[in-house]
Amino acid sequence: MELQAEPFLLHDVVRRQSKDGRPFLLATLRDRTGQISGVFWDVPLTVDVWARPGLAVLVTGRVNLYKDSIQVSINDMTRANKVDVAVFLPASRRPREKMLAELRDHIAALAEPWQTLAGYLLLEGELAERFAAAPAARSMHHAYVGGLLEHTLSMASLARHLARHYPHVNADLLVSGSLFHDMGKAYEYALEEGFAHSEDGRLVGHIVRGIVLIEKAAAELDFPAVDLQQLIHLIASHHGTHEWGAPVVPKTLEAVLLHQIDLLDSRIGGFMDHVGNDGGGADWTTKRSEMFGTELRRPEGFSNIGAAE
Amino acid sequence: MELQAEPFLLHDVVRRQSKDGRPFLLATLRDRTGQISGVFWDVPLTVDVWARPGLAVLVTGRVNLYKDSIQVSINDMTRANKVDVAVFLPASRRPREKMLAELRDHIAALAEPWQTLAGYLLLEGELAERFAAAPAARSMHHAYVGGLLEHTLSMASLARHLARHYPHVNADLLVSGSLFHDMGKAYEYALEEGFAHSEDGRLVGHIVRGIVLIEKAAAELDFPAVDLQQLIHLIASHHGTHEWGAPVVPKTLEAVLLHQIDLLDSRIGGFMDHVGNDGGGADWTTKRSEMFGTELRRPEGFSNIGAAE
Amino acid sequence: MELQAEPFLLHDVVRRQSKDGRPFLLATLRDRTGQISGVFWDVPLTVDVWARPGLAVLVTGRVNLYKDSIQVSINDMTRANKVDVAVFLPASRRPREKMLAELRDHIAALAEPWQTLAGYLLLEGELAERFAAAPAARSMHHAYVGGLLEHTLSMASLARHLARHYPHVNADLLVSGSLFHDMGKAYEYALEEGFAHSEDGRLVGHIVRGIVLIEKAAAELDFPAVDLQQLIHLIASHHGTHEWGAPVVPKTLEAVLLHQIDLLDSRIGGFMDHVGNDGGGADWTTKRSEMFGTELRRPEGFSNIGAAE
Amino acid sequence: MELQAEPFLLHDVVRRQSKDGRPFLLATLRDRTGQISGVFWDVPLTVDVWARPGLAVLVTGRVNLYKDSIQVSINDMTRANKVDVAVFLPASRRPREKMLAELRDHIAALAEPWQTLAGYLLLEGELAERFAAAPAARSMHHAYVGGLLEHTLSMASLARHLARHYPHVNADLLVSGSLFHDMGKAYEYALEEGFAHSEDGRLVGHIVRGIVLIEKAAAELDFPAVDLQQLIHLIASHHGTHEWGAPVVPKTLEAVLLHQIDLLDSRIGGFMDHVGNDGGGADWTTKRSEMFGTELRRPEGFSNIGAAE
Amino acid sequence: MELQAEPFLLHDVVRRQSKDGRPFLLATLRDRTGQISGVFWDVPLTVDVWARPGLAVLVTGRVNLYKDSIQVSINDMTRANKVDVAVFLPASRRPREKMLAELRDHIAALAEPWQTLAGYLLLEGELAERFAAAPAARSMHHAYVGGLLEHTLSMASLARHLARHYPHVNADLLVSGSLFHDMGKAYEYALEEGFAHSEDGRLVGHIVRGIVLIEKAAAELDFPAVDLQQLIHLIASHHGTHEWGAPVVPKTLEAVLLHQIDLLDSRIGGFMDHVGNDGGGADWTTKRSEMFGTELRRPEGFSNIGAAE
Amino acid sequence: MELQAEPFLLHDVVRRQSKDGRPFLLATLRDRTGQISGVFWDVPLTVDVWARPGLAVLVTGRVNLYKDSIQVSINDMTRANKVDVAVFLPASRRPREKMLAELRDHIAALAEPWQTLAGYLLLEGELAERFAAAPAARSMHHAYVGGLLEHTLSMASLARHLARHYPHVNADLLVSGSLFHDMGKAYEYALEEGFAHSEDGRLVGHIVRGIVLIEKAAAELDFPAVDLQQLIHLIASHHGTHEWGAPVVPKTLEAVLLHQIDLLDSRIGGFMDHVGNDGGGADWTTKRSEMFGTELRRPEGFSNIGAAE
Repeated sequence: MELQAEPFLLHDVVRRQSKDGRPFLLATLRDRTGQISGVFWDVPLTVDVWARPGLAVLVTGRVNLYKDSIQVSINDMTRANKVDVAVFLPASRRPREKMLAELRDHIAALAEPWQTLAGYLLLEGELAERFAAAPAARSMHHAYVGGLLEHTLSMASLARHLARHYPHVNADLLVSGSLFHDMGKAYEYALEEGFAHSEDGRLVGHIVRGIVLIEKAAAELDFPAVDLQQLIHLIASHHGTHEWGAPVVPKTLEAVLLHQIDLLDSRIGGFMDHVGNDGGGADWTTKRSEMFGTELRRPEGFSNIGAAE
Repeated sequence: MELQAEPFLLHDVVRRQSKDGRPFLLATLRDRTGQISGVFWDVPLTVDVWARPGLAVLVTGRVNLYKDSIQVSINDMTRANKVDVAVFLPASRRPREKMLAELRDHIAALAEPWQTLAGYLLLEGELAERFAAAPAARSMHHAYVGGLLEHTLSMASLARHLARHYPHVNADLLVSGSLFHDMGKAYEYALEEGFAHSEDGRLVGHIVRGIVLIEKAAAELDFPAVDLQQLIHLIASHHGTHEWGAPVVPKTLEAVLLHQIDLLDSRIGGFMDHVGNDGGGADWTTKRSEMFGTELRRPEGFSNIGAAE
Repeated sequence: MELQAEPFLLHDVVRRQSKDGRPFLLATLRDRTGQISGVFWDVPLTVDVWARPGLAVLVTGRVNLYKDSIQVSINDMTRANKVDVAVFLPASRRPREKMLAELRDHIAALAEPWQTLAGYLLLEGELAERFAAAPAARSMHHAYVGGLLEHTLSMASLARHLARHYPHVNADLLVSGSLFHDMGKAYEYALEEGFAHSEDGRLVGHIVRGIVLIEKAAAELDFPAVDLQQLIHLIASHHGTHEWGAPVVPKTLEAVLLHQIDLLDSRIGGFMDHVGNDGGGADWTTKRSEMFGTELRRPEGFSNIGAAE
Repeated sequence: MELQAEPFLLHDVVRRQSKDGRPFLLATLRDRTGQISGVFWDVPLTVDVWARPGLAVLVTGRVNLYKDSIQVSINDMTRANKVDVAVFLPASRRPREKMLAELRDHIAALAEPWQTLAGYLLLEGELAERFAAAPAARSMHHAYVGGLLEHTLSMASLARHLARHYPHVNADLLVSGSLFHDMGKAYEYALEEGFAHSEDGRLVGHIVRGIVLIEKAAAELDFPAVDLQQLIHLIASHHGTHEWGAPVVPKTLEAVLLHQIDLLDSRIGGFMDHVGNDGGGADWTTKRSEMFGTELRRPEGFSNIGAAE
Repeated sequence: MELQAEPFLLHDVVRRQSKDGRPFLLATLRDRTGQISGVFWDVPLTVDVWARPGLAVLVTGRVNLYKDSIQVSINDMTRANKVDVAVFLPASRRPREKMLAELRDHIAALAEPWQTLAGYLLLEGELAERFAAAPAARSMHHAYVGGLLEHTLSMASLARHLARHYPHVNADLLVSGSLFHDMGKAYEYALEEGFAHSEDGRLVGHIVRGIVLIEKAAAELDFPAVDLQQLIHLIASHHGTHEWGAPVVPKTLEAVLLHQIDLLDSRIGGFMDHVGNDGGGADWTTKRSEMFGTELRRPEGFSNIGAAE
Repeated sequence: MELQAEPFLLHDVVRRQSKDGRPFLLATLRDRTGQISGVFWDVPLTVDVWARPGLAVLVTGRVNLYKDSIQVSINDMTRANKVDVAVFLPASRRPREKMLAELRDHIAALAEPWQTLAGYLLLEGELAERFAAAPAARSMHHAYVGGLLEHTLSMASLARHLARHYPHVNADLLVSGSLFHDMGKAYEYALEEGFAHSEDGRLVGHIVRGIVLIEKAAAELDFPAVDLQQLIHLIASHHGTHEWGAPVVPKTLEAVLLHQIDLLDSRIGGFMDHVGNDGGGADWTTKRSEMFGTELRRPEGFSNIGAAE
C-alpha cells in the first residue's frame, strides 16, 4: 500500500544509526484509527532539524504488512501546517454532536443555581471547547479525543440513577459534581502535542485547576457559598484517598458516591480499552493490564475491530 | 422506667468487683432497637453460673436515663428459652416479606439455567432460611438482621441497571453473581449467638463456603461447567484484591463490575450506618468512621431516629 | 488553691452519671499555660444546657493537687462573653510583635513582584490577622496560638540559607513558597472553638484554600502567569507525596527544597512538642510519639518548664 | 551440531520481519534439559499457519554455539503428534518412581480417616496422575515437571519432623495438610501447553480448586465434619496472609505451621532455582532474584550443571 | 489469702486519686508465676517517694479473688534489696541447667574455628551470664527469663535438622548463626528493671550490639576473615527484610535459612504464648493476637495451667 | 574522531553474535567525562578471554557521532596495567584538595574528644584514602569519584548551621555524625571495579561496617562510652526508618536532625544528577527520575555541559 502525503501526528521520534553508519529515524505515527511505526532511512538534514513529537506531518511512503507487525517505509515527510490535530488522534466512537446534546440535556435537568453554573462553564467559551475534545487520561482509560466528555456523560447518567436508588442524596450536587469532576483535564493535556502533559497539567494538575476555574466562575455568578463549598469538596476528594492524589478524602454522601461512580466508570473504561487494544482474537489478552495487574478475559462475542489482517 | 421480664440478648458479659469487694456483672443488652448497658450488683451465684454472651434473657430492673448515657440497673435475670433470637437483634428497616418478594422477582427475571440454580439455593431449605436473616457484616455495614438480604437486593438492582448501561455484559451472570456473592455469610455468623463469628466463619470464611455450596448444587442440577466456572470466578474475586481477601482477582467484565457494585453498595451502607449510629444531631459525627478514616458529615435533613431522649 | 471566676476555654465536655445516679460533667479546661481536667458534680440544668466544647468560661472552684494528676473541683461555671479566646489557648513562646517584625523583614527582602504579593496577603486584612494567630497543626507540631507564624518564619529563614547553600535556586520563589505554603491553615481551624477543624478545613483543606487565595490575589495584582504557576506548584506539592495529601508531587528544585524544609522543621517542632508535653524529668518520654513511632530521648539539659510545682 | 527431527515444545513464538523484508519466526524451544532460542528464516506458509505456543514439534536444523548464547537455525519444523509433552519439559532431578514410593510411605504413616482420604485423592485416578507431573509454580520455585510432587514430599517430611519438635501438634492433620495444600495446582497449569495457566487456574485458582476436590471426596467417603473443617482451614490459609492470596489467615497451630513450612520450602526452592538458572560460575548471580529482591551468592562448591559450553 | 512480705517486682506504678480525694497507688506486681494488680490506699509518703517500675519489693496485704479478676489490697510495701530479680520474673518452663547442657552439646558439635568462638562468647563471662537469663522479647514471644536461651536452642536444633534436609548447606555456619543471632538481646533488656528496654537496647539495638561483640571476639581469637564476614551477614540479615529492621537482606543460602527458622520458631512461640496468656478455657482466645492479627484457636487438649480459680 | 590507545574502564561487557554468525562484543566504556558504548567486531580470542567488567583498558578505534548516539568502533583493546582507575571514573567537579581542606576545617572546629576521633579515622590511613575517593552511591546521587566526600562536606556545613538554628542541639555530636554517617561506604564499593558493590558492601553493608570501624577506633582512643553510644545511635539510625534499612529509628534530637539533613542533601544531589544526566536542552527531563517518580523540570538557566554535539 502506498501513502501519498497522508496526514499523521508524530508521537515519538528517535534517531538511530545502523551498524554500517547510515542514520535513520524511527517514528511512531498516529491518526484516529490507531498508530503504526515508521522508518525513514537516510533522513535528509532539512527534515532532521524540525522533526519532534507532537507535530502534524504529511507522510509519503510504502506500508509493509506482515502478520503481526505493520511498518511504514518513509520516503518523504513534510510539516502539515494549519491542520486540526484532532484529526490525527484516536477519537471516541460516540459522535461528538450526540454527546454535546446529551450534555445539554444533563445541564437542563439541573435546578438552579447549578444549571447556570454548569452552562456557564461547560457550554460556551474556550474551556467548553477544550472540554469537548480532551481525553480522560493519557493511557489508562478513555484515552482518546472526546474521551473526557464520554466519561463525564456516563458518570452523569449513573449519578442520576444512583440519586434515585439511594435515599438522602442531593441529586443536583451529585450530577454537577459528575459534570465538573475532571473538567480541569481540559488543560491537563497539550492536545496540539498528541496528548502530552501540558505545563499546567504537570505543575498544577487537573484537580486544583478545576477548582480554581469553578471558584472564579462562582465569584462572577454570585454562586451561594455553602453550595460552592460542597461542590469544591466533591472535586477535591473525587480520587477517594490521599494515595490516589486527593488532597482531602470524601466526607459527605455525595462525595463518597462521586468517588465510587468515578472508580466504576474508569475501571470499566480501562477494561474495555485494554481488551480492545490488545491484539489477536484469543480469549485472553496477551499483555497484563497495568490497571488490573493481570491478563483480562475478553467478553463473550467481543471482537477487536481493526485487528484483522 | 421499669422493665418487667423484658427480653434481651446478652451481647457482652464482664465480671467485675468494686473497690469494696462487691462483685457485679456488666452486661451489654441488645434488642432490635439497639443496645444498652446493664449493671447487676450482687449477682446471685445461680445467675453467675450460666451468664455468657449470646444467650437470650429476660431482664427485670430499672432504666436510668441521663443525657448521653442510658443504663439498666438489673434486679433479676433469667434465661429465655425457646425464643427466636431474631427478636432481639437489630433488624433491617425494610419488611422481610417485601424483600423476599423482591428476591423472587429478581430470580424470576433470570434466564435458564441461572433461574433454577438461584431458586434452588435461595428460595427453599435451611440455607434460604439463614440467608434471609443474616447480617451483611458484624460491624462495618448492613450489620443487622436481614442486612445480607437488603445488601443483596440493592446489588441485584444495580447489577440489572449496569448490565444495560454498559455493552457486552452478560446480565444473567452478573445478576446471579450479585445474588450469590455473599451467600456464604448465611453460615458466617452464629445468629443464635448475637452475630458472633461461627466456627465455619472463622475457619473457612464466606467466600469458600459460598463456592462449596454452589459447586454442590451445580453437581445436583447438572449446571453447565463453563457457566459454573464463570460464576465461581465472580464469587472468588468479588473482594477485588488479594489484600481484601480475594483468592483470585477479577479478570472478566462481570467480575470487575460485581466488585465495583459490592464496593459501592457497602460503602454507602457503611456511610449510612455510621451517621445513623453516631449519636447527637450535629452536622458532623463525633467519631471517626473506621471504614472512611474520618468523621462524616450527615446528609442534609437526615435525622437520627431514636437518638432523642 | 482556689479559683475565683478564672477564665478558661472548654476543650472537651462529657456528661456522666455516677453509680448512685448523680449526674456530673467532666471538662477539659485550657488556658495558655496548658490544660487541666475539671469535674462539676450536680451540674445545674442552667449550665448543662449551654456547656459545649469551644466556649470561653469563668470557673470558680478548688484545685486538688496530687503527684501526677491535677483536677479542678468546679463549684460554678458561667459563660465569658466578649473575651479574646486567644487568651485561653496555649501560645508560642516567641512574642507576637517580634515575629511580625521578622515577617516584615522577610517580605522586605523579596524582589518584585514577590514582595507586593506577600505584603498584600500576609501584612493586612482578615487573612493576615488570622495568619498571625493560627496554630500550625491541631496536635502534631507547633500546636499553639502563633504556631503557624513561628513555623513559617523558621522555614523562611532556612529557605534563605539553603538558597545560598545550593546553586541554581530561585531564592524569591523559594522564600515566597515558605511564607505561603501553610497560609490556608488560617482558615483550617476554628480558632474561636479551641482549634477545632473548621467546615472549610474539613471540606476544602488548607492546600486548596491557600491556592484559591493566591490565585485571587494574583488576579487582582496582575501577578505574572509563569511565576504564579511555579508558586502554585510549590503550594500544591509541599506535602511531598500523594500519601501525605499532595495533589501533585514536587517536580522543580524549589518544590523539592520546600518539601524538605517543611519536613525538617515540622519534625523538629514535633520532637520538641513531644518531649515538652510528656511529663516527668526522666531521660526518656513515657509515651510513644505518634510522629516518630517510638519514645524519645530528651536533649541533654532540657527541662520541662511548667511541669514542676 | 545438527538436529534431525528432534522433539521440542514450542514455548514462545513471535513473527518478525528483517529490514529488507524477509519474514522470520523466533521461537523458544524447550525440552527437559532446558530451553534454547530458534530462528526460522523464510518460514513457509504451511508452517506459519499452525505454529503457536504449547505445541510439540520436531525440529531439523543446526545449533550455533557461541560463548554466552546458543541458537538453533531452523531448517524444518513439523508437528509432533501423540507425544507425551512431559518429555519436552524440564523435570525434577528426583526420579518419579522414587518420589511416588515416598508419597505412598507418607500416606501409609497416616492414621485413619486421614489415610483413606489421602489415598483416595493422591494415589489413583486422573487427579493423582496430574498431581505427579505438575510443576509447583510457573517461574518462582520448583518450576518443572514433578516439581509439585517434589515440593509436597519435602514439606511432608518437614511436617513430620516439626510435629515431633513442637508439642500439641496434630501430626496427622499437619502431614495431610502438607500433602493436600497445593493439590489444586494439578489443574492450575495446562501441562499440555508448556506450563501455561489453564482456564481453571486463571478463573478459580488452586486454593479454591483444591478445597472443592477435598469437599467432594470427603462427601463420598463420609469423612468426619470436624476434621474436614480443620483440613479446609489449612488449605484455605496456607498462603499466610490476605496479601498473598489466602481467603482466611491461619488461626490454628497446624495452620501456622503449614504456612511456615510452605514459606521455608518454597524460599529454599526459589533460591536454588535462581542460582541454578543464572548462568556463569561467578560467586554472585548476575541477575536479581525476583523472590528475594537481590542478587544471590552461590553456595560454596555449588556448580551449575548443564551450564558448560 | 494473706501475703506476708512476699517478694514481687514492681512492673507498673500509677498514682491516682479517688473522687473524694484519697490518694492511692495502682501497681502491677510480677513474680515468676505471672502478674497481678495491686492497690495501695492512703499510700504513706515514705513509700510514695521511691516507688517506681523495676524495683523489687516485699508486699504485705490481702489477695481478693473473684471470678475473672484477682487483686492485692496492699497494706505495706518495702524495698527488697540485694535480691536476684530473676526470682520475680516469669521464667521458661525448661530447667536452666538442662538448657545449658543442651547449649554445651550444640557447641561441642561444631567444627573449628566455630566451636572456639561460640564457647568463648556463650559459655563464660558476663555475656554468657546475661545470655542465659534474658527473654527473647518484651511481649511478642518467649517473653520470660530464659526465653532467649529456649528460643536459641530450639533454633539450633532446627538448624541441625535442616542442614541435613537440604543440600549445599554449611551446617557449622548455620548452627553458629542460630546460636549468635539474638545474642545482642543479652544487653537489650534491663533485666534488673523487669524487662524494660535498656539504654543500649534503645539506642543501638540487639542486631548491631551482637555484631560488635562478635567482631571483638573474632579479633581476639584471630577468627578467619571470610568466615567472619559470612557470619556477620547472618546476624545482620536475620530479620529478613528492611521493614523488619534488617540492615541487609539475606543473600546466602544459610542467611535465608536462618531467617526462615527464626520466623518459624518465633511464630510458634508467639502462638503458644498468646493461647497460654489469654484466660479462660474456651476454644478460641478472647483477644486478638497482635502477631497474627486474629483470635487464635487453642490446640486440642491444650489447657491453661494456672488459669483455674 | 580516532582513538589511539585511549584509557577507559570496562563497565559492562556482553558477547553477542550477528545473524550471520559473526561474534562481537558490546562494551560500555567509562572515563571521567562520562560513558560511551563500544562494539568490537570479530573480537580475537586473545581479548575475548580476559575481557570483563571492572578492568582498565586501552582502546584503539573510531568514534562515530550521530545526533543522539555516540559509539566507538573498536579495532583493538589491551589491558592497561598499573593505572589508577580513578582516572577513568566520573569525578566530583569540586577539586579534591579543596574538599580535603574543608574536611580538615570541619574537624578542627570540633571540641574534644570528637576532634581526635574524627582526625584518627578520616585524615590518615587506608580508610581516609578510600573515604576521599568513594562515591556516595552507585546510581542515585553523588555517584562519582569524590561524591562521598562532597556529600559529607555539604552535610557537615548544614549540620553546623542547624545546630545554631535550633536550640538544645549538641553541635559536636551532630557534626561528627555528619562526618561519619556514610564512612562505611569507603568499603561498600569496589572502586577498582568501577563502582561495583564489594563483597563487604553486599554482605555487611555500610551502616554496620561504619559502626564496627568507629567501635574499634573508640576502643583504641578510650573514647567516652556515653558519647560513643550516642554517636553509634546516629550512624545506626540515619536512614530514618526500617523500610529504608535503619536497624534502629532516630530517637534523639541529633539523630532526627541527621536523618533530615541526609534526606535533604541526597534528594538535592539526586535532583541535580538526574537533570544533569538526562540529555537534551528541553525544560523537562525525558526520563522519569527513579528517586522522585516523575520527570523533573530543569532549573532556570541550568545547562547540561557536555551534552552538546
